Amino acid sequence: MYVGKKVTRVDAYDKVIGRTRYTDDLCDKGAYVARILHSTIANGKVISIDTTEAEKIPGVVKVCTCFDLKEKHYFPTAGHPWSTDESHQDVADRLVLTDRVRFYGDDIAAVIAEDEVSAAQALRVIKVEYEEYPFVLDVHEAMKDGAPQLHENYPNNILKHTTIRKGNYEEAIKEPGLIKVEGWYSTPTVQHCHIENFICYAEKEADRIKIVSSTQIPHIVRRVCGQALGIDWGKIRIIKPYIGGGFGNKQDVLYEPLCAWLCLQVGGHLVKLDVPREETFVSTRVRHAIHSHIVSWVRPDGTFAARKLEAFSDQGAYASHGHSICAKGVGAFPQLYPCDNVEADAYTVFTNKSVAGAMRGYGIPQAMWAVECHTEEVAAKLNMDPIEFRRKNLMPVGFVDAFSKNELYSDTFNQCIDKGMEATDFKRKYEEYKNQTGDVRRGVGMAVFWYNTAVWPISLETSSCRMVLNQDGSLQVQLGETEIGQGADTAYAQMTADVLGVPMDMVHVVSCQDTDITPFGTGAYASRQTYTAGFAIRQTASLLKEHILKYAHELTRMPEYNLDIIDGKIVRVTDKRELMSLGELSTEALYSLNHSQHLSAESTAQIKSNAYSFGCTFAEVEVDIPMCKVKLLDLVNVHDAGTLINPALAEAQVHGGMSMGIGFGLSEKLLFDPKTGRALNNNLLDYKLSTFMDHPNLRAYFVENPEPTSAFGTKSLGEPPTCSIAPAIRNAVYHATGVFVNDAPVNPHNLFRKLKEEHMIEGGE
Amino acid sequence: MYVGKKVTRVDAYDKVIGRTRYTDDLCDKGAYVARILHSTIANGKVISIDTTEAEKIPGVVKVCTCFDLKEKHYFPTAGHPWSTDESHQDVADRLVLTDRVRFYGDDIAAVIAEDEVSAAQALRVIKVEYEEYPFVLDVHEAMKDGAPQLHENYPNNILKHTTIRKGNYEEAIKEPGLIKVEGWYSTPTVQHCHIENFICYAEKEADRIKIVSSTQIPHIVRRVCGQALGIDWGKIRIIKPYIGGGFGNKQDVLYEPLCAWLCLQVGGHLVKLDVPREETFVSTRVRHAIHSHIVSWVRPDGTFAARKLEAFSDQGAYASHGHSICAKGVGAFPQLYPCDNVEADAYTVFTNKSVAGAMRGYGIPQAMWAVECHTEEVAAKLNMDPIEFRRKNLMPVGFVDAFSKNELYSDTFNQCIDKGMEATDFKRKYEEYKNQTGDVRRGVGMAVFWYNTAVWPISLETSSCRMVLNQDGSLQVQLGETEIGQGADTAYAQMTADVLGVPMDMVHVVSCQDTDITPFGTGAYASRQTYTAGFAIRQTASLLKEHILKYAHELTRMPEYNLDIIDGKIVRVTDKRELMSLGELSTEALYSLNHSQHLSAESTAQIKSNAYSFGCTFAEVEVDIPMCKVKLLDLVNVHDAGTLINPALAEAQVHGGMSMGIGFGLSEKLLFDPKTGRALNNNLLDYKLSTFMDHPNLRAYFVENPEPTSAFGTKSLGEPPTCSIAPAIRNAVYHATGVFVNDAPVNPHNLFRKLKEEHMIEGGE
Repeated sequence: MYVGKKVTRVDAYDKVIGRTRYTDDLCDKGAYVARILHSTIANGKVISIDTTEAEKIPGVVKVCTCFDLKEKHYFPTAGHPWSTDESHQDVADRLVLTDRVRFYGDDIAAVIAEDEVSAAQALRVIKVEYEEYPFVLDVHEAMKDGAPQLHENYPNNILKHTTIRKGNYEEAIKEPGLIKVEGWYSTPTVQHCHIENFICYAEKEADRIKIVSSTQIPHIVRRVCGQALGIDWGKIRIIKPYIGGGFGNKQDVLYEPLCAWLCLQVGGHLVKLDVPREETFVSTRVRHAIHSHIVSWVRPDGTFAARKLEAFSDQGAYASHGHSICAKGVGAFPQLYPCDNVEADAYTVFTNKSVAGAMRGYGIPQAMWAVECHTEEVAAKLNMDPIEFRRKNLMPVGFVDAFSKNELYSDTFNQCIDKGMEATDFKRKYEEYKNQTGDVRRGVGMAVFWYNTAVWPISLETSSCRMVLNQDGSLQVQLGETEIGQGADTAYAQMTADVLGVPMDMVHVVSCQDTDITPFGTGAYASRQTYTAGFAIRQTASLLKEHILKYAHELTRMPEYNLDIIDGKIVRVTDKRELMSLGELSTEALYSLNHSQHLSAESTAQIKSNAYSFGCTFAEVEVDIPMCKVKLLDLVNVHDAGTLINPALAEAQVHGGMSMGIGFGLSEKLLFDPKTGRALNNNLLDYKLSTFMDHPNLRAYFVENPEPTSAFGTKSLGEPPTCSIAPAIRNAVYHATGVFVNDAPVNPHNLFRKLKEEHMIEGGE
Repeated sequence: MYVGKKVTRVDAYDKVIGRTRYTDDLCDKGAYVARILHSTIANGKVISIDTTEAEKIPGVVKVCTCFDLKEKHYFPTAGHPWSTDESHQDVADRLVLTDRVRFYGDDIAAVIAEDEVSAAQALRVIKVEYEEYPFVLDVHEAMKDGAPQLHENYPNNILKHTTIRKGNYEEAIKEPGLIKVEGWYSTPTVQHCHIENFICYAEKEADRIKIVSSTQIPHIVRRVCGQALGIDWGKIRIIKPYIGGGFGNKQDVLYEPLCAWLCLQVGGHLVKLDVPREETFVSTRVRHAIHSHIVSWVRPDGTFAARKLEAFSDQGAYASHGHSICAKGVGAFPQLYPCDNVEADAYTVFTNKSVAGAMRGYGIPQAMWAVECHTEEVAAKLNMDPIEFRRKNLMPVGFVDAFSKNELYSDTFNQCIDKGMEATDFKRKYEEYKNQTGDVRRGVGMAVFWYNTAVWPISLETSSCRMVLNQDGSLQVQLGETEIGQGADTAYAQMTADVLGVPMDMVHVVSCQDTDITPFGTGAYASRQTYTAGFAIRQTASLLKEHILKYAHELTRMPEYNLDIIDGKIVRVTDKRELMSLGELSTEALYSLNHSQHLSAESTAQIKSNAYSFGCTFAEVEVDIPMCKVKLLDLVNVHDAGTLINPALAEAQVHGGMSMGIGFGLSEKLLFDPKTGRALNNNLLDYKLSTFMDHPNLRAYFVENPEPTSAFGTKSLGEPPTCSIAPAIRNAVYHATGVFVNDAPVNPHNLFRKLKEEHMIEGGE
């Protein structure tokens, strides 16, 4: 059995020596190079674009502007499965180029040139005349009457407002003796900072368009490009090679439609669009900054009487994944700490800023920041041990969410917390650090999270798989659920080997997706890969095994139920005798003059289930109060992701998520100039991405409660590791200093402000 | 319906504007470049190879020699389906590099360099020490006792000798009054001269090897590379892009094994092997030169009493396709003109020359040269009209070949001959040119051929097909039967569209084969493409249609037998009402929250049938006797290839075959230096390939008798057009001059010799 083993990644060697090929490696050197001209105002209208000088530059093939769009095909960009129910479709508010500019960095024109230098030169000499409108960068300002309106039909810039109502909040708060705890919590705009910037290239192939793209969602990109170009979806072909990270940014259709459209403007010639880092920061997607307001009414015994949440999510200029992110975050609120009387309101609001989309955690890091900061405050106000307070209020075993039907099957929260406490010697340190004085103090803190695994029942969950047997009994496996660096291909190989009964080196997972060839699957997102694909793999491998044993019956005369495949051999189960190798059978099947059959199997699994994943973070910090500097001393994540397919990959996955969580908690923030709306630190020098230098020895622990709804007992692990890091750090800082920092990140600026408020330090603003 | 229509090639536009990509276009520019060092002796042994100077050249990565082979894995190269019956397997006599040299041009070492210049420089400074053996270039010499022996276990260099015996020849010739006609006929060594030389590149991918190659037979190349490297076949992945012609040369595994082995010598680094024209001529494959001896015993009424054929086929240095070519040619002998008493002997003989393999016609052009030259002589000897003589003796309607079970279902020979005579005004010209004098004379002549369609029952015929439906109702079709320029993809699209009931532009044939992904099929050869793949397409499209109508039943409540697909619509057959488009159905099926199913189908067709194809050539020539020069004035081919899938492509196919036949009949011959065995004219300047300048207006006519064994009524057309050209020209030259030229080509050298023998001209040798 391979599931549960620390097998080496199938692509490890090739990745280490640099043999795996990425989009840019595959692009023909004869490609034209495209560069985008972005708007230099935050809100307004392009009046004219003068391309005369640009077109004179040798090497420039064509300059296309927003005025060249003959037909306006508005398209959505969110990487969601298509819905045939119009009311459930994503907002289609994008054009490949636009004259109605909504943020500083919007796409108004593009240069196609023979080389990068000519393209860059041309960008510099294009003259744009704008009609400027007032702009708005703050969600609360944007919601005010009279604020600049970004889109028609969205009064007060509210893309969507949803509510959750449970019990009767107004009545409940009248209960005598309640303690009110209230706070505002904010998370910053951050960016994914995947190593490989967005890149794609497009070319005509007969009457169709082929696009090779660094994406997480090839089959969705196909559909959206069809929408964006106004052509049949089958006329689009998307190929996804290895990609250098996505983290949700590439769960959006970014510039594939523009690139394809540009290709059509030059007769179908190959056009490459390699987006520089500075533009990837501003003009692809960012994580929603969310401003949350929580009010809790608590009884002295530490139980909740009533709770209220208002969340204001900064969508930026276009809808992208839109409200689903804030809605998911707000949806977590009544589930994590159930309470009889709840009011929750989620607002997703347009502003004239970079567009927010999916990013690892999909609303939950922001929600956990608000909820777990707040939880710590409630415990403090009650003078209760914060962990005991959580244990008392966290969702109990047997909890079933009314909407998703997700159930908490085991005492996982207590198991995870116990493991984390033990790993960090939490109890001792919590006591030890209680009464510190001096400039440099230590603290420990923790936070919990939950996470869903897939998107059912909000959206469709469907995955097809194909397996094809080779002469030697080895086989190829194809899936639309993409390898994006997380190690999915390795997990797929392990699962397949186990179900089919073959050694793992006989399973070749086809890593590259090609919508013409790869079975349909919606891609890599929602931490659904091993869960969703697991069903398709188990079903398809079982089907292939059936076909194999049926053929084995022809060769051996043994009934199929007396045959099995064990370690790549056809085995008679009655006496365990090896009758032939799978290779012998397959060779015979392929080349038989009597009955030639090329053994393969393909099937669709529709998944009408979903699963909770759980865990927590424990952090230890040292705070230098005069310097307003937090040093992370220890960080432990404990996860229950069900059965681990590959503990080594699981640990690596957690380490990566922890690293992103550290940046989110301590340093990262994309800043916008209030005077112009221009991003100020859109580069890896000025944007304080967390690096190896900021990390303590990251530690990952697991509690494995097999998930009963799952084909292999597994559930989400991709996004969860990043969800509870920031509030755990913030709670440790509180433990060290007694100061609650409610605005992430806990960087010197925010800490300085709080310490000053609490008169712990002196100094000017 | 699209079958039978002159639809435009699916790849026409992309090919014309140069957008289709070939192997070299796809190779990463970081590839190492390999070049082969060929032997400069015709027979012997390499004693030592000094690579010291070569290794000093900057840019040279490694020099590998035949002495670097740690294990000797002998492999066959013929593009035949594998047989699990050892006695039916091809002779495995090749090594990637050899120290036992068997022809001038054998592969003894290779240079791997960073660039082509360094590689070429290195080749020049490698010092080789040989032990030379005597060599033999002539088949008859090679068969003599004491001749140099090329291979162990093949006494007298005879690779194989097969016999056909029918009736009693020795008794039959005793019949009184018989007229004996006897002749020797020879065909030259020619080369395919495809535009794209052989090229491939190889690279490791995890623990496997990926090879991209200009081949006709990707799935066979996979197997042979496995054999050549001594690794499991599933560890090899072959990708075949568009190719620039093959004509049978690429139905051989040429240098893929060497390239893969070289790649392994440099740690799996990408290595490209682009074989120059000069080497492609000598060291890939050539057409077997066959020397045939025919004796016919004829009654004065024009019927055969007994016949005898001996054919001696020049295999060159290695077995390749070996005896199967001569055997096929000799097998034609008793079938085309049946006779009760027949003796036929086929010998395939090793010589120290370039290796002979498959080439368009696979033995039949050589056989038709012998048989149809001879037939003309018999008619002349009997003073009978040669066409009447043929009509009298050709296989009659209802003829069934005992071995293949092929049957002649219609009066196709007479239909073809009638059509050809009419098209060329043959009767009038035949009379008109009868009594010419003067230096320049005209003549008309003709020849017939038959051809098989597939390889059953000699070998396996099996083809799998996969179809995958897109959201818009369009679909991809995948087959292992490769597009090699002949237009197979277009024919496949037509067939699929008809069976499924969709417009042809909704059918996207995936042109590139990838053994990891493409359903198994043995490739492009034996003129089997539309016949063989036709079964798989018909079966798979029917299966897909079943799945679609089953899903349509769910959506419409109509029973499946009341539903059909017409022009891309789901139609209720009871009232012809269009219920929905296929795109609507497919979109629903993909995205249904109720029942999501990705509609696709895959199936294997094993074909246990074969079919005769028939036709003839009519030629008109003008012979300048003093100049010994033949000018071709008119050339007509008439074919019965059953139902034509695409008359435009069929005509183009015939034109191409006629062009190759003209070269074979009039000018082409690869010459070898008798002193050294070195090829003398292995370049396109000195080798007299027929060109557009040598062609009259080529004309193709068709007789369409639908083939009853065939899925679409079609049968072979790829190779047939080249089979009867040369003897038709030769017979026209006879008609003009009264001189029988029995050695092809009818070039000035051969014509001079004959005219001199007949005292029609004077002059020195």
